[in-house]
Amino acid sequence: MLSKNQIKEIQSLHLKKQRDNQKLFIVEGVKSVSEVLLQKSDLVSKAYATKEFLLNYKKELQQFKIDYSEISEEELQKISLQNNPNQVLALCNYFSSTPKVFDFKKDFTLYMDDIRDPGNFGTIVRLADWFGIKNVFCSPASCDFYNPKVIQATMGAFLRVNVVYSELEELLKHQNIDNVYGAVLNGATIYNNKLSNGLIIIGNEANGISDANLKLINKPITIPSHQSNGTESLNAAMATAIIVSEFYRQLKTGA
Amino acid sequence: MLSKNQIKEIQSLHLKKQRDNQKLFIVEGVKSVSEVLLQKSDLVSKAYATKEFLLNYKKELQQFKIDYSEISEEELQKISLQNNPNQVLALCNYFSSTPKVFDFKKDFTLYMDDIRDPGNFGTIVRLADWFGIKNVFCSPASCDFYNPKVIQATMGAFLRVNVVYSELEELLKHQNIDNVYGAVLNGATIYNNKLSNGLIIIGNEANGISDANLKLINKPITIPSHQSNGTESLNAAMATAIIVSEFYRQLKTGA
Repeated sequence: MLSKNQIKEIQSLHLKKQRDNQKLFIVEGVKSVSEVLLQKSDLVSKAYATKEFLLNYKKELQQFKIDYSEISEEELQKISLQNNPNQVLALCNYFSSTPKVFDFKKDFTLYMDDIRDPGNFGTIVRLADWFGIKNVFCSPASCDFYNPKVIQATMGAFLRVNVVYSELEELLKHQNIDNVYGAVLNGATIYNNKLSNGLIIIGNEANGISDANLKLINKPITIPSHQSNGTESLNAAMATAIIVSEFYRQLKTGA
Repeated sequence: MLSKNQIKEIQSLHLKKQRDNQKLFIVEGVKSVSEVLLQKSDLVSKAYATKEFLLNYKKELQQFKIDYSEISEEELQKISLQNNPNQVLALCNYFSSTPKVFDFKKDFTLYMDDIRDPGNFGTIVRLADWFGIKNVFCSPASCDFYNPKVIQATMGAFLRVNVVYSELEELLKHQNIDNVYGAVLNGATIYNNKLSNGLIIIGNEANGISDANLKLINKPITIPSHQSNGTESLNAAMATAIIVSEFYRQLKTGA
């Protein structure tokens, strides 16, 4: 049985301030928690699991000496942020991620300019993982990486993709980046132009790329639209998927 | 001032059963409501608008003889499904959409096989609009098109894209469709293979394409992944964006 205090303590981790204080974040659901267990079990500080989860993973929890409590579905509902909680919630330790060495002449990656929706942020990290992008950069005002909804949306990719917060100007000062791409109106259409390695800036959901960062783009690009009026836009994560896919196609598959 | 009954009545439209009873659905936010006003004002049955919205659109509301009430931000918060309601909520009449004639030999389109997340469903409709796809098909168990979160996620595209509910088998019986594509493991990689016009099946978020529909695919395709273990997947809407973009590139741009 969870005490009221325990419930409060877990729920408090839905807030960034409390996460930062305790250096703990929440991972939920069978798929994500089992991946942490099998890939980086030392991250797990404590697991709250239903009988169903324990049926399948008790051995791993014991093997990796993880502190766990059996809880009811009702208790899980109370501590979860999900509409349909899925068997388990784990408290995990913040981990220090040393950016892997990244050569912008040999690879391409993303810079998220104030992506604020946790679903978009997490799903972009998942996309990066799919296409083998090891480091993703983002502005300090972007979503918190440890936000439970971000972690959830990455579907385990948070374990593999390194997220680095930095102002774009700072990043460009310290890295040797020839090509700074950004999706704008009237850029070069991505399909008909040769794309190269470098950094691709993804704009905020409502406001696009900030004025300060727009000035730093030297390769403006555009996803062509079939619309005649040109007033429409794509969801930020969808646009990112299309752009990354096209970079991948041109640079990694030779197609 | 909204009465308790009025608030209840509007909130009841968050449920499909009530929407179907009253043949009314909810459109929210400045962008979407203003688009309805300017493109299909006869859809609007009633508008609830804050002072801020009226400052900019009172003229249009009067010009199109639309019944509207001024409400406070607090009242808008009560009737809205959004975390951050945006100036206006309109009740709109169901509209009958006659599927435009669709020639599967000259065009490609999507079949959503039980897409259940309203955000995914709506954002796929928005994607279709971007790439000029006029009809989108989906299984009867997919999201309700008039779900307020679907409408919201389409960002106005619900006005332009025709959504047709049909079992896949029925659709294939009545239409002349040579190519039935579906994203599966070990299909032809989309970048290196010539894609043609036809129908592209998009699978459910958790379970992929149903067994019954898998059998109807004659052109299995795959988005190549950089992963070695191959256990990962992409979000359904993101995968759709990548696939549609590649069809568009090959078939419409000549690139």
